[in-house]
Amino acid sequence: MPEQFHIVPESEHEALVATAYRNRGFTDEESNDAARFCSFASAHAVRTHNAIKALHLDELFGSGAGGCVPGADIKVIENGFAASEVWDCNRKLGQSVAYAAIERCIELADKYGIGQVSVDNAFHYLWGGGYVLNAANRGYIAYTHCTAGLAEVVPFMGRHPTLGTNPHSWGFPTTEAIGFPIVIDWATSVVAMGRVQQLKREGGKLPPNAAVDAEGKFTTDPEQATHLVPFGAHKGYGMALINEIVSAFIGGSLPTLRSREIPKGEKRTPSFYFQVIHPDALSGGSFACGRNQTENIKAVIEDIKGHGNENIFLPGQDFAQAAQQTASAGGLLFSKAEIAEFNQLAAEAGHPEWDPAQLPTFPG
Amino acid sequence: MPEQFHIVPESEHEALVATAYRNRGFTDEESNDAARFCSFASAHAVRTHNAIKALHLDELFGSGAGGCVPGADIKVIENGFAASEVWDCNRKLGQSVAYAAIERCIELADKYGIGQVSVDNAFHYLWGGGYVLNAANRGYIAYTHCTAGLAEVVPFMGRHPTLGTNPHSWGFPTTEAIGFPIVIDWATSVVAMGRVQQLKREGGKLPPNAAVDAEGKFTTDPEQATHLVPFGAHKGYGMALINEIVSAFIGGSLPTLRSREIPKGEKRTPSFYFQVIHPDALSGGSFACGRNQTENIKAVIEDIKGHGNENIFLPGQDFAQAAQQTASAGGLLFSKAEIAEFNQLAAEAGHPEWDPAQLPTFPG
Repeated sequence: MPEQFHIVPESEHEALVATAYRNRGFTDEESNDAARFCSFASAHAVRTHNAIKALHLDELFGSGAGGCVPGADIKVIENGFAASEVWDCNRKLGQSVAYAAIERCIELADKYGIGQVSVDNAFHYLWGGGYVLNAANRGYIAYTHCTAGLAEVVPFMGRHPTLGTNPHSWGFPTTEAIGFPIVIDWATSVVAMGRVQQLKREGGKLPPNAAVDAEGKFTTDPEQATHLVPFGAHKGYGMALINEIVSAFIGGSLPTLRSREIPKGEKRTPSFYFQVIHPDALSGGSFACGRNQTENIKAVIEDIKGHGNENIFLPGQDFAQAAQQTASAGGLLFSKAEIAEFNQLAAEAGHPEWDPAQLPTFPG
Repeated sequence: MPEQFHIVPESEHEALVATAYRNRGFTDEESNDAARFCSFASAHAVRTHNAIKALHLDELFGSGAGGCVPGADIKVIENGFAASEVWDCNRKLGQSVAYAAIERCIELADKYGIGQVSVDNAFHYLWGGGYVLNAANRGYIAYTHCTAGLAEVVPFMGRHPTLGTNPHSWGFPTTEAIGFPIVIDWATSVVAMGRVQQLKREGGKLPPNAAVDAEGKFTTDPEQATHLVPFGAHKGYGMALINEIVSAFIGGSLPTLRSREIPKGEKRTPSFYFQVIHPDALSGGSFACGRNQTENIKAVIEDIKGHGNENIFLPGQDFAQAAQQTASAGGLLFSKAEIAEFNQLAAEAGHPEWDPAQLPTFPG
């Protein structure tokens, strides 16, 4: 955590980020989607998946490398199932696709109680938790997963990385009940590869059972760690496998080819899966002690957090606290190093740079 | 693993189990559902969740204790959402409810691509993996979870058990692709309470980070272990929380009241959630190298199991191997101790006992 943050108004942040995207050939709509979503991530203190990461991914794997196609159109594949859609998104910007998919799932859930959108030929949507948090803020239960861009994770009892870090994200509309949406959002690896690299630079140790060496043996030495492993042994491995299997049903190809050089006729794109449930479509309407659904959720969460568990953490609480901090600061919080990176992006895109001396600060 | 098993024909097993259920007041249909499902579990070597366990649960928490009501009718709660149903099952036998719910989900998935059934006022369905395996055998993707009967699990960073062992089960129709359905099926605790009791009897040690003592500190000593913990720290905790939150949306009440003495107006029943997806409703139809969907799934699984990972385990493989063993033995495999327990159940129900000397054997 840096000593202090600089405060950047969301509108200024979005202006810079949208300009950077437009400068790389993205349409106004895509650029605004990307900027809006990056603001949303930074407003929730998701510092690992902010605009700097998004534009870096775009350069390495996206519009800079053919993995993402600015201005691509989403094609809906007709399949005759009323509550389900499959899209070929033609490597369109992930943020625009994910916003649209959640929107469509909400329409389907309003009608059918549940709706799903599967997406073939996708490009990185940055932070799955953001889309389900967004849907939960609007009163819906939402779920998404995707196949990660690179196969970095060794299956349980395996030696070679053939799985992605394959995240899962669930959002629940619990704001009325407990003040914020519960958001369960994590990768199926114990740690991210970025964490290994950070510990290598800083000379730290990895947690046990988080990474393996070239021989497939567990190591806590980041210098020896070549590959990641799933959390929770066979259980997290099963969760990572789900993303690959669903992707295989949709149209994704071999995980080890993803984002890599491929033979002719092969595919290397990730897949997305989205699902939204209307909370009324779950309700039996018969809650104990005359409670309504919201009061029942409140009572259940209070029971879980009671009995000496008052200090436990509820997933999503961290995002809610960060959003409050952002609101009280009156803008997004970036470290000095991050401001410098934004200014590099501004310079590349011909956008005015931010003067750290002129930005108000906030304690870290 | 016992030295040898006795082989019991499925029909004889089902006759005994159905008689035991009928003797407790269950209808013919319920008794046959219970017997059929117990055979299915034993045919897949699910020795922790067989007929002995089912009838024991029924005695402790079910028809013997008011938690399950023989002959109860399922009431469909109208909610106006076309692909979703909510049932008040009035504490009907879990196996009958789960069979019917998966059947209804399949009908909904055939029409809408995805269908869900939520169940309030439920009683233990024995083994969630069995229902999704059944659906996967019929060509569907299926998912179920339930709130477990007792709050035995301490939330991550907590002290008091306020969560159930809350299992999740997913089944995928991968038989054509790889020879068997992939079934991911586990509780969200590291181990079951039965395992703690077994190690206490046998004088063994628990794995690290699987249980806590009365102070909430991790212990590997089964004598000191009072409560279980979720697998994978905050990640497994999040998965356990999902079951409680979905249950709270459906109509389930406080987890710490479940199966226990309750104040007037309270509820202590678990909830079930079922979801089925038609595999065609996920398909974008555009698979690499001219593959069809099945060939694509085969290629993806082969990639994950390749590159030196040839000996990794695929979830569901164990069930498939057990089913083959059952088929080659020509009947269900039970240990001598299990045969004795079945004979106790037979004596109680006035059913002819099994003579171990007359039953063919199979190596353990």
